[in-house]
Amino acid sequence: MPDSSRALKRLLLGRQMRSDRLHETLLPKRLALPIFASDALSSVAYAPDEIFLTLALAGGAVATTHSWQIGLAVVFVMLVVVASYRQNVHAYPSGGGDYEVATVNLGRWAGLAVASALLVDYVLTVAVSISSGVQNATAAIPALDGHAMPVAVALIIGLTMMNLRGVRESGRMFAIPVYAFMIAIMGMAAYGLYRSLMGDLPRAESASLELVPEHGYESLGTLAMVFLLLRAFSSGCAALTGVEAISNGVPAFQKPKSKNAATTLLLMGCLSVTMLMSIIYLSIKTNIHYAERPAEQLLVNGEPVGSGYIQHTIIGQLALAVFDHFHLGVILVSTVTGLILILAANTAFNGFPVLASILAKDGYLPRQLQSRGDRLAYSNGIMILAGAAAVLVVIFDAEVTKLIQLYIVGVFVSFTLSQVGMIRHWNRILATETDPRERRTHQTSRAINAVGALMSFTVLLVVLATKFVRGAGWAILAMAILYLLMQGIHKHYAAVSRELEVPAADHEAGRLPSRVHAIVLVSRIHKPTLRALAYARGARPSTLEAITVAIDPADGERLQQDWLQREIPVELKVLDSPYREITRPIVNYIAAIRRQSPHDLVMVYLPEYVLGRWWENILHNQSALRLKARLLFMPGVIVASVPYQLNSSKEVAEMIRQDIQDDTIAAGKGR
Amino acid sequence: MPDSSRALKRLLLGRQMRSDRLHETLLPKRLALPIFASDALSSVAYAPDEIFLTLALAGGAVATTHSWQIGLAVVFVMLVVVASYRQNVHAYPSGGGDYEVATVNLGRWAGLAVASALLVDYVLTVAVSISSGVQNATAAIPALDGHAMPVAVALIIGLTMMNLRGVRESGRMFAIPVYAFMIAIMGMAAYGLYRSLMGDLPRAESASLELVPEHGYESLGTLAMVFLLLRAFSSGCAALTGVEAISNGVPAFQKPKSKNAATTLLLMGCLSVTMLMSIIYLSIKTNIHYAERPAEQLLVNGEPVGSGYIQHTIIGQLALAVFDHFHLGVILVSTVTGLILILAANTAFNGFPVLASILAKDGYLPRQLQSRGDRLAYSNGIMILAGAAAVLVVIFDAEVTKLIQLYIVGVFVSFTLSQVGMIRHWNRILATETDPRERRTHQTSRAINAVGALMSFTVLLVVLATKFVRGAGWAILAMAILYLLMQGIHKHYAAVSRELEVPAADHEAGRLPSRVHAIVLVSRIHKPTLRALAYARGARPSTLEAITVAIDPADGERLQQDWLQREIPVELKVLDSPYREITRPIVNYIAAIRRQSPHDLVMVYLPEYVLGRWWENILHNQSALRLKARLLFMPGVIVASVPYQLNSSKEVAEMIRQDIQDDTIAAGKGR
Repeated sequence: MPDSSRALKRLLLGRQMRSDRLHETLLPKRLALPIFASDALSSVAYAPDEIFLTLALAGGAVATTHSWQIGLAVVFVMLVVVASYRQNVHAYPSGGGDYEVATVNLGRWAGLAVASALLVDYVLTVAVSISSGVQNATAAIPALDGHAMPVAVALIIGLTMMNLRGVRESGRMFAIPVYAFMIAIMGMAAYGLYRSLMGDLPRAESASLELVPEHGYESLGTLAMVFLLLRAFSSGCAALTGVEAISNGVPAFQKPKSKNAATTLLLMGCLSVTMLMSIIYLSIKTNIHYAERPAEQLLVNGEPVGSGYIQHTIIGQLALAVFDHFHLGVILVSTVTGLILILAANTAFNGFPVLASILAKDGYLPRQLQSRGDRLAYSNGIMILAGAAAVLVVIFDAEVTKLIQLYIVGVFVSFTLSQVGMIRHWNRILATETDPRERRTHQTSRAINAVGALMSFTVLLVVLATKFVRGAGWAILAMAILYLLMQGIHKHYAAVSRELEVPAADHEAGRLPSRVHAIVLVSRIHKPTLRALAYARGARPSTLEAITVAIDPADGERLQQDWLQREIPVELKVLDSPYREITRPIVNYIAAIRRQSPHDLVMVYLPEYVLGRWWENILHNQSALRLKARLLFMPGVIVASVPYQLNSSKEVAEMIRQDIQDDTIAAGKGR
Repeated sequence: MPDSSRALKRLLLGRQMRSDRLHETLLPKRLALPIFASDALSSVAYAPDEIFLTLALAGGAVATTHSWQIGLAVVFVMLVVVASYRQNVHAYPSGGGDYEVATVNLGRWAGLAVASALLVDYVLTVAVSISSGVQNATAAIPALDGHAMPVAVALIIGLTMMNLRGVRESGRMFAIPVYAFMIAIMGMAAYGLYRSLMGDLPRAESASLELVPEHGYESLGTLAMVFLLLRAFSSGCAALTGVEAISNGVPAFQKPKSKNAATTLLLMGCLSVTMLMSIIYLSIKTNIHYAERPAEQLLVNGEPVGSGYIQHTIIGQLALAVFDHFHLGVILVSTVTGLILILAANTAFNGFPVLASILAKDGYLPRQLQSRGDRLAYSNGIMILAGAAAVLVVIFDAEVTKLIQLYIVGVFVSFTLSQVGMIRHWNRILATETDPRERRTHQTSRAINAVGALMSFTVLLVVLATKFVRGAGWAILAMAILYLLMQGIHKHYAAVSRELEVPAADHEAGRLPSRVHAIVLVSRIHKPTLRALAYARGARPSTLEAITVAIDPADGERLQQDWLQREIPVELKVLDSPYREITRPIVNYIAAIRRQSPHDLVMVYLPEYVLGRWWENILHNQSALRLKARLLFMPGVIVASVPYQLNSSKEVAEMIRQDIQDDTIAAGKGR
């Protein structure tokens, strides 16, 4: 069964890749930027929206007055964080990013906390980006309106499939839209700025609407106003998510890895900041009115616009204004924005499986997450990420504003711990370093990381204060659960490992059994039974007997007679089953043998039908499965499945044979 | 895992019963009547309702004029069918009922058609009876109103549990309510008749309402009227369902089985007919108005009563009228009616698993349905029946009138085929019988069955004509699917059986392998590996080697060194895995061995961890499972699982040990 899907898998995922081709997938900067920075860059598509709609709770005037201040604050944080992470990238070229930095410098608990935070935030990156992407694409494709959730889920499935094909092709596939996005936004900003200078910039479509405060926000006191500003700032910090992606992905860069990564990081920071501020500036100039609940907050002639009003995203409204005589430009900006957001989710598809695999290697997650899949991708991690993100999208109905409340907190937890870890890192190096030139460099780095740590921690507090009850609490809960889960898994693996460990001088574990008592289980006399008997005899055990369970004594007798008639050279023992069970009498019988001669090995030969189709298996082997599950718990008992391949299994067998041949040919070519 | 539920199972189901206690569960008539006849008797609780509400489509007057005629028609059919089935019971005392009769006399196709029809109708019996029971109980327990569906599902679960405990206890548990129902209905009828004769019978609560025709039924032509009468007759024939239950259950009767069963059948027919006609008579006398859609069809002062009106069942309204000064009587009748309907579903819980087990024995259903469960009940069949009925109740929201449209068609398919089969049966006997006295008896029987066949077929046509589009079509579809499914399963089993058959002179199947090539799979050096090695060595194969797959060449080397250092007396071979897979290199290697020496037996020893908790298994043995699934398809390869029991498995092992001891003690007592 698991093999019959191989052909389909090959069709969808392409040919497998050898491990020694792994280095071929290293990324030059021009590919690394779109792959790792698409998340950070794309957040300019929703960060301004969140700033404006949060401020607009207190009315349109507040949004206009304060949005650029909030924008500048976010830019400042962004620059500090980028500067800090450039230190990380240089200090830890092996990747592992925040998890490694926190673990090495602060200990296991910190590493695990960072890992929990990052795993949760990766999931949110996918959910937020995809949802926002669909929201943006709606401006270009009106048919999507009202179907955001199913479309988002479909996109997640599509991304999953692409990522199962492997990272290299993703890079190529994603480079064009990311660069197109940069060009489109920068172009729009430049043209808008030009028109603004010429005094020719039109007002946005929502400029004519009146934006009234939400109920309860009409006249805020100073304290309440400060709180609202902080909330807007929190939401705006969504622009910072994804900065850590590059530091996690250093090993995927071409050499010199650290230098290339640091350059890419700086480039990304500058691009991000420029785009963010341009959008905010133009939004103010075109007088965009953007509300959390447009149907009620936006008025036309004093009346709410109602639920019929479709509020385009800020980028969408900007494009409509700036390109008011050039509709192709509008379509281009909307499409490309929608596209880059969807691709931004890909950052998480790169980061999550790598981190999960590192955690699995360290024994914090199930081992299955460790193995690379067919095309050098970490298939299991990809599937889990996609599943979790899809669940979030369904629960929150693909609404960006709701999802964004859960976002960010994880990123800043890991920023903070990582930067604190870096301070320790430099301290340790400075303790031994004597070269004054080097010392100065390290001291500068330490200062940068200290500022970064302080800044990240402050933002984290602000985010928690303003968003805990709005959703960040759920994210914290998810992290806590993950943290405990990973700790539990680690404990379990450690305990098992201790239990299985063999002391160098242990002779008990390898003690040979004195004799082998072989038992062949018989239900009828047919080919599988005869084959099992032949194999069991071929293995030359000390003693060999066949046993059968007679639910109906008459059946048992008939079988016994047939057995004798065929002169089968093994004794058949018939076990009674007063309770009409098959498993128990056998377990009972074997337990008796074990009691009599505890040093013997009991080898139970189980004839099994092998069938090619899944439904056929429902019709067979059920008692065998139950019996096996029981016998596993008896020490000194081996269950040997003797398969009998029926005709219907031939197709699968042929596929396996084909597969081996392919492999042999490929190996031959490779050498 | 499957064993940890044993304690719970014992708690819910009681101790297991030995096969030789099976005869103790045979039923005397006084217990057989409530168990097998509760379905047929209970249908008087909904059959009159369906007659009235169908006729009432054309207005209240039509219902009053024609309901007694329809009632008489149903009574006539009932008496004919009972008379016919008394012949069956005498001719086939071994049970199997309609399925056996049709198979033996008309062939496999007819038997299978009857079986499909009966299986579908058993499911509907549960769904209809439970739904109607809840509807009736609502008169006594108003809190149930509006929660019919969940209550019905809960009741199905409850019934399932009771039935998993075994048939005997069901009999005792059900006798009291069934007899109470008969007494209550007969008592109500007698008292009502008395009051009617005294001129003292009050009018029903709905008598004062005006019952207007449904839209489109205001003035029906003769043809349309005849069609409506036939439709009412079809619905009324629901009273006949369950008549076959007794003939299916003959083996459960005490001796003389046939005579006792026939007597019970007649008794049941008479009771049923009396109750049905009494209810119809009293309904007319008290002038009950009963509508399919009461909110719109019933008027008070010319205005519809609206959705606030709760329409009690006919029995409920009768009780309210007859016992207008004795409210305890009302509560008694409602409660007992609700109860017997719920218990009527039990008929299906007796019939379905028995029939499924016979079908499984004949190879038409999966073998798992054949095995008797712990307490002499057919657990798997019971679970399937309950599941299917619950699904129906959920889909049709526990509405009796909707469910009843699917009902009956199956019963009459099986009535018809069974009666036609009986004609053939008598023909065959008459062909050889010479004693004129016997011949006359047989000829009478044949005549009765012929009338029965004709009558059943006519009713079947009427049901199909009047109800096909209203729901009977779905029932027919379900039967067709079941028919094809059973045929498919039979073909599959037959094909497998042919393939596995050993010709008496076949020596190929039992040919011994020339040599045994043993392979121990190694991932690390730990106790499970050493145990597997020890066992493999203990089995003294011709050659023995250990193999490991090195995803990372360095890991492979480390393992190799450790292996040599420990002086393990078996050679370790390290397989490369360029594609980072574990399964394929091993399959590849074994395939190569098989090619080199095709007459050797390859024995693959697989060290496996045994853990006690289900989630632990997610963390281990995954690669082993995948590998096993692959190796099964290779002829000449045996997979021997060498279990290593970890501490966490001790609890389960202890439970299994306990279980064996219990068994030994019980067996000791039994002998």
